[in-house]
Amino acid sequence: MSTFTPVDWQTRPAPQSAGEWIARAAEVATVLATDAAARDHAGATPYAEVQLLKESGLVTLLGPVAHGGAGEDWTTAYRVVREVSKADGSIAQLLGYHYLWNWAARLVGTREQWEHVEAEAARNRWFFGGAVNPRDADVIVTEDGDDLVFTGRKTFSTGSRISDVTVLEGVFEGTDQHVFAIVRSDSDGLTFHDDWDNIGQRLTESGGVTLDGVRTPWSSAAGYVDKKFQPRIYNTLNVPTIQLVFVNFYLGIAAGALQTAATYTREKTRPWLHGGHERAVDEPYVIDIYGDLTAKLWAVEALADAVAAEGQRLHEDPDAVTEQTRGEFEVRVAAVKARATDVALEVSHRIFEATGARSTSHAEGLDRFWRNVRTHTLHDPVFYKRREVGRWVLDGELPEPTWYS
Amino acid sequence: MSTFTPVDWQTRPAPQSAGEWIARAAEVATVLATDAAARDHAGATPYAEVQLLKESGLVTLLGPVAHGGAGEDWTTAYRVVREVSKADGSIAQLLGYHYLWNWAARLVGTREQWEHVEAEAARNRWFFGGAVNPRDADVIVTEDGDDLVFTGRKTFSTGSRISDVTVLEGVFEGTDQHVFAIVRSDSDGLTFHDDWDNIGQRLTESGGVTLDGVRTPWSSAAGYVDKKFQPRIYNTLNVPTIQLVFVNFYLGIAAGALQTAATYTREKTRPWLHGGHERAVDEPYVIDIYGDLTAKLWAVEALADAVAAEGQRLHEDPDAVTEQTRGEFEVRVAAVKARATDVALEVSHRIFEATGARSTSHAEGLDRFWRNVRTHTLHDPVFYKRREVGRWVLDGELPEPTWYS
Amino acid sequence: MSTFTPVDWQTRPAPQSAGEWIARAAEVATVLATDAAARDHAGATPYAEVQLLKESGLVTLLGPVAHGGAGEDWTTAYRVVREVSKADGSIAQLLGYHYLWNWAARLVGTREQWEHVEAEAARNRWFFGGAVNPRDADVIVTEDGDDLVFTGRKTFSTGSRISDVTVLEGVFEGTDQHVFAIVRSDSDGLTFHDDWDNIGQRLTESGGVTLDGVRTPWSSAAGYVDKKFQPRIYNTLNVPTIQLVFVNFYLGIAAGALQTAATYTREKTRPWLHGGHERAVDEPYVIDIYGDLTAKLWAVEALADAVAAEGQRLHEDPDAVTEQTRGEFEVRVAAVKARATDVALEVSHRIFEATGARSTSHAEGLDRFWRNVRTHTLHDPVFYKRREVGRWVLDGELPEPTWYS
Amino acid sequence: MSTFTPVDWQTRPAPQSAGEWIARAAEVATVLATDAAARDHAGATPYAEVQLLKESGLVTLLGPVAHGGAGEDWTTAYRVVREVSKADGSIAQLLGYHYLWNWAARLVGTREQWEHVEAEAARNRWFFGGAVNPRDADVIVTEDGDDLVFTGRKTFSTGSRISDVTVLEGVFEGTDQHVFAIVRSDSDGLTFHDDWDNIGQRLTESGGVTLDGVRTPWSSAAGYVDKKFQPRIYNTLNVPTIQLVFVNFYLGIAAGALQTAATYTREKTRPWLHGGHERAVDEPYVIDIYGDLTAKLWAVEALADAVAAEGQRLHEDPDAVTEQTRGEFEVRVAAVKARATDVALEVSHRIFEATGARSTSHAEGLDRFWRNVRTHTLHDPVFYKRREVGRWVLDGELPEPTWYS
Repeated sequence: MSTFTPVDWQTRPAPQSAGEWIARAAEVATVLATDAAARDHAGATPYAEVQLLKESGLVTLLGPVAHGGAGEDWTTAYRVVREVSKADGSIAQLLGYHYLWNWAARLVGTREQWEHVEAEAARNRWFFGGAVNPRDADVIVTEDGDDLVFTGRKTFSTGSRISDVTVLEGVFEGTDQHVFAIVRSDSDGLTFHDDWDNIGQRLTESGGVTLDGVRTPWSSAAGYVDKKFQPRIYNTLNVPTIQLVFVNFYLGIAAGALQTAATYTREKTRPWLHGGHERAVDEPYVIDIYGDLTAKLWAVEALADAVAAEGQRLHEDPDAVTEQTRGEFEVRVAAVKARATDVALEVSHRIFEATGARSTSHAEGLDRFWRNVRTHTLHDPVFYKRREVGRWVLDGELPEPTWYS
Repeated sequence: MSTFTPVDWQTRPAPQSAGEWIARAAEVATVLATDAAARDHAGATPYAEVQLLKESGLVTLLGPVAHGGAGEDWTTAYRVVREVSKADGSIAQLLGYHYLWNWAARLVGTREQWEHVEAEAARNRWFFGGAVNPRDADVIVTEDGDDLVFTGRKTFSTGSRISDVTVLEGVFEGTDQHVFAIVRSDSDGLTFHDDWDNIGQRLTESGGVTLDGVRTPWSSAAGYVDKKFQPRIYNTLNVPTIQLVFVNFYLGIAAGALQTAATYTREKTRPWLHGGHERAVDEPYVIDIYGDLTAKLWAVEALADAVAAEGQRLHEDPDAVTEQTRGEFEVRVAAVKARATDVALEVSHRIFEATGARSTSHAEGLDRFWRNVRTHTLHDPVFYKRREVGRWVLDGELPEPTWYS
Repeated sequence: MSTFTPVDWQTRPAPQSAGEWIARAAEVATVLATDAAARDHAGATPYAEVQLLKESGLVTLLGPVAHGGAGEDWTTAYRVVREVSKADGSIAQLLGYHYLWNWAARLVGTREQWEHVEAEAARNRWFFGGAVNPRDADVIVTEDGDDLVFTGRKTFSTGSRISDVTVLEGVFEGTDQHVFAIVRSDSDGLTFHDDWDNIGQRLTESGGVTLDGVRTPWSSAAGYVDKKFQPRIYNTLNVPTIQLVFVNFYLGIAAGALQTAATYTREKTRPWLHGGHERAVDEPYVIDIYGDLTAKLWAVEALADAVAAEGQRLHEDPDAVTEQTRGEFEVRVAAVKARATDVALEVSHRIFEATGARSTSHAEGLDRFWRNVRTHTLHDPVFYKRREVGRWVLDGELPEPTWYS
Repeated sequence: MSTFTPVDWQTRPAPQSAGEWIARAAEVATVLATDAAARDHAGATPYAEVQLLKESGLVTLLGPVAHGGAGEDWTTAYRVVREVSKADGSIAQLLGYHYLWNWAARLVGTREQWEHVEAEAARNRWFFGGAVNPRDADVIVTEDGDDLVFTGRKTFSTGSRISDVTVLEGVFEGTDQHVFAIVRSDSDGLTFHDDWDNIGQRLTESGGVTLDGVRTPWSSAAGYVDKKFQPRIYNTLNVPTIQLVFVNFYLGIAAGALQTAATYTREKTRPWLHGGHERAVDEPYVIDIYGDLTAKLWAVEALADAVAAEGQRLHEDPDAVTEQTRGEFEVRVAAVKARATDVALEVSHRIFEATGARSTSHAEGLDRFWRNVRTHTLHDPVFYKRREVGRWVLDGELPEPTWYS
């Protein structure tokens, strides 16, 4: 369904720095922007989009240089997600989840496991999906000789359907012990349902998946040594790390909304009949809306960048992560999540006041920003994020790590 | 495309009071609610819906009792619009515009004209549409013997396509003198374009219309006596009167959003995993959202009712309307328009926080409230409404009457 | 400390209608406004102010006509409180509490009791204070022959110090049974502490009071017949009735803040150096602030009026009050309390943006509006008001009556 | 009037890094916090406070190391101002203005001039005040031989009264050419009026000053070479540089308000009677307020830090500053000014909802945070800051440099 023009990335010099990778992401965004509204309406499976992410090199951004990856860190990955999101929140979500699931090997697995996974992933430009939803014990894992067998159903499996490999998650039968493993997305027993039909983030292929006895060797069970999980605090960074992915695509959607709206105001919005201005861009209220929303967005972007840097220090020395440093990081992430939610909702909601009546045409598609933000920001209640911050301020209480949000 | 079950209104006792008419409107809303989300998605021409408005008696609510109308006043009409809007903002807009265009005979016409129009309209249960957009001089009127000839194009003609009669508006060639006349909607020269495809108020048939030499006798030119317009201040109540229609369907949409969301929260929303509550309705933040939004909505409803009563006093003695009483009424209308805009946007935007992630499914259609409010509240910039209020507060300045907003 | 000029009310015709009483209250406000900022700073005991309320006739507004009262109802009383509050929030609070405590005889007492109290109060123009704080069991009542003896201490006793009579409240020793009685404010054993020194509502004489064996005959125990309390649902209207007093003086303070600020803007505020406007009242942002705040205030005023009318219907037939009608009234009161709190805080906080830097001079005293609202709106947490509304919306749950808030 | 305990800073090791200087500022804040509410009420001239700033080394933070200064840069200075502001907004304002006026030599003067001023200032621990208000041409400068003579009156002269040296500003007679010069604050002809009596920032000694023929040699006219001003773009960084001072003391006041309130809530606030919680810190709405306000504050702090770093790059190479880099910096400063204003007002306004009714006692002084923010944030209308941002977003328009705001 995509109608954007493919780019021959091979002929372009490969990015050599964080700044150049962010610029590369901006180029990808420019491509995606050309038919973003139409692709959102069509809601087709984003094969071409994922191909674009692969060919532009973005999927291997975090991968080891030795195996063809860019060797960048999370601070760059977050910025890349944000750039892509300016044009297409769905594709940015897919990319951000891909980063997290690829990284999950490192978060949960042994060194041997994650070095292997990261090398393979970079070499083959794997795109990662996930059938991970630790909220419910909906997938049961049993043992069968040297294999683990996953059976059940996940309501959401963002990206799996168009991925090369999928992170499975389940609990061992009769326990609440979670296990994660990476399998080929075309494995026997995996059936993706095409049942994601929501008002926003429509291209994320977040439909359900049935796991009907999906087999994978014990050795692929992340973090298990001799069939016993070796926990460490670093495991529990999964939640703040993915929540920062959320933050960054919310911020990108908001920035994209503002940019798109500003172009519309400049080019199409008519000044008010009785306002005495010749151009809409001279209306005081229009200027005020852009000034106010931009200032609000910049503040949260700055916090997102600061918190990403704080998190990066933890990623760089996983064994040094303590309950205290982990907890304080999660509190900071909770705060920026709350702010990004508010600002992205406000921006995507208010731009219309500055674009005017005709900008509500279906073809223009300016509502996709709001639908995208509105949909994903409900992933977990933002009230509980504020609560994490508030409790820490009042009592110094650290959030209890969980597998989900 | 409608799938709602027709009601045999004939067998029910006719409403005998304002309260009973509002209850009748609530019954109509209950019918419309059964498939509101599906009808919004389909976007089909609302033939059955208009039929429902006719058969239930709502279209003749303001009509003279002697000719089969209910003889109610505007305070009831606004409440009826609000009730219908709880289920279907589009149909409520059509009904409210119908009331205004039917009433336009009285606002602009001579007593002889409006008594004739109101009698005919009530007897025949005419549904009114309008090709009225005094913002632009896009329709030219010329004289041809005893006839007037309308030629041009209106970008918006809400409801005309499914109406019995249409109010035409144009300017006499080479002047800025407006003229209004009522013609049959199937008149020669009227071509309705099916080009309304916006994100909200999707069933309002607000597409464009071409007037290719539409003829109507001079005698139908509202307010003209011997080819000269007889202006009076009461003419200029058209703007505050229709703006209160807007206010009431915004408030109805907001109330409908709250009710629909509350039902969803009660029946489907899951409490948060780590929140310690067994039911979503016991979550403090959920309760707070409903408490806050309800209080906000009630305040604006109370103002809408108060301002409607203030306006009714003007309608009851048209010749007594002065620049001062007209101006103060418009300031009050501007204020309630500003508040209704804000509260309807806030309600339709925030309900999702209390319904949760799964409530964003396309089929659920909970976003229609926001799309409806977002679309129509851009009809004219709310900043200019606040400006009317602010200038009056600071300087006692009365808004200058215009034909449009 | 007051420097306002006394008015010879005797020479003026007595008000004959609700409208004229509201106009009378506006005259009183004009008097109070002349030195409101200075009196607030001085914080002296408001003897002259209470005298003004007596002489202008406002204290007997609700009193029986047969005994010299005006015989008006609560809807007028609330409006009178609001008018006075435009000039002086403290004095409006004193007046509103006076109404409630005078009325308490009717809320809690037998017909014989309240008819007696109201007649005496009207004839003697009693000003009522209260040592009522049912939140804590801080005053113990014992029986001594035909007398009741009150002993303990109340942290707050708004107005008592400058009152003629005081409503005492306590619990019978060893029980949680409350008893209310009216005593002379100069009774033996009553010691008022001059310890109210708060940032707002500085003239309300809300300091503590010690009750050292204050005696009153059993017959004065409101609602007790043969030493047994005869409860009825109407008793529990004390909370919504006084909460509407709060609402109305909040709204009056806000209206006063807006008026005072608008005058300042008109007369003293300079346009911005680089803004291109010759008068501050032409600055778009200044106009917008007044437009926005006025619209918000009007909405809550309309709700306050509507809810007052709903309450009046209950007061008019006390025996007909049911749990359901009482509960729904309290929910409505809770809603308007929440809105009045928000709007009064916003108005008193934001006016400065439209008055500018020099308006922060101490002598100007423009901060008193915010200090007044900020202080009293903490009487009870507004969150719990929204909760009452939210629970009713979600579950139809009615608030449980309590003696306090 | 100060009652805080002096500290023997000599016996403590001097700070050796930016982080240690910020910690030193926090120590100073701890001292100031001990009697901040009482000193605010007293409003006495802050001699002891300025002495504290000198002895703690903070006044020479930006001074050259060779002459006893700490050699830190603006990013540290801003953070130091923010720390001090947590305890005392007035003293932080004095310190921040001191930094700017000391730095003014470098902004406006020749290299020879500023090297001399900075050396002298550091060696003598000069505290700088300013009689600078380029908004109005209220001080006229004439030439008398080798001297310049300043005559006129400034409405505001923050800190001059308690300073060692004062920056004078005036315009040459009959021109609009500004001139700045540094004079001893005890110079003949300088008369400070003790007329600053505003609701906030009460200790800033911002009263007026009369200049009655104050003489200073031509050579002290900053940036003048052979009696001609040598302009460069760097001169015009005065506005964004001081505006970032504002931002940082607003943020410090807000942080101080939150900390002070949190301590109060923890130690004194009672849970609501009917809320079912044993401690106020367990009330969901209390936790939510702290979570929400903290998240909001953190976002603006992060933006303030980011923008300070952007500005520092300009300060480090003054000759490289272009209209474009200067303009983009001012836009960013305008944005953070708008956000800091909003968040500091919101925090200082809403903390009371989490501290409760008794926290409004005058002695507690919790209102000083709001009074401080409310007063200074009116320095220039925040609307014009949002306008600078909005115009840049819409049109790429850069703000025109002015001498004031």
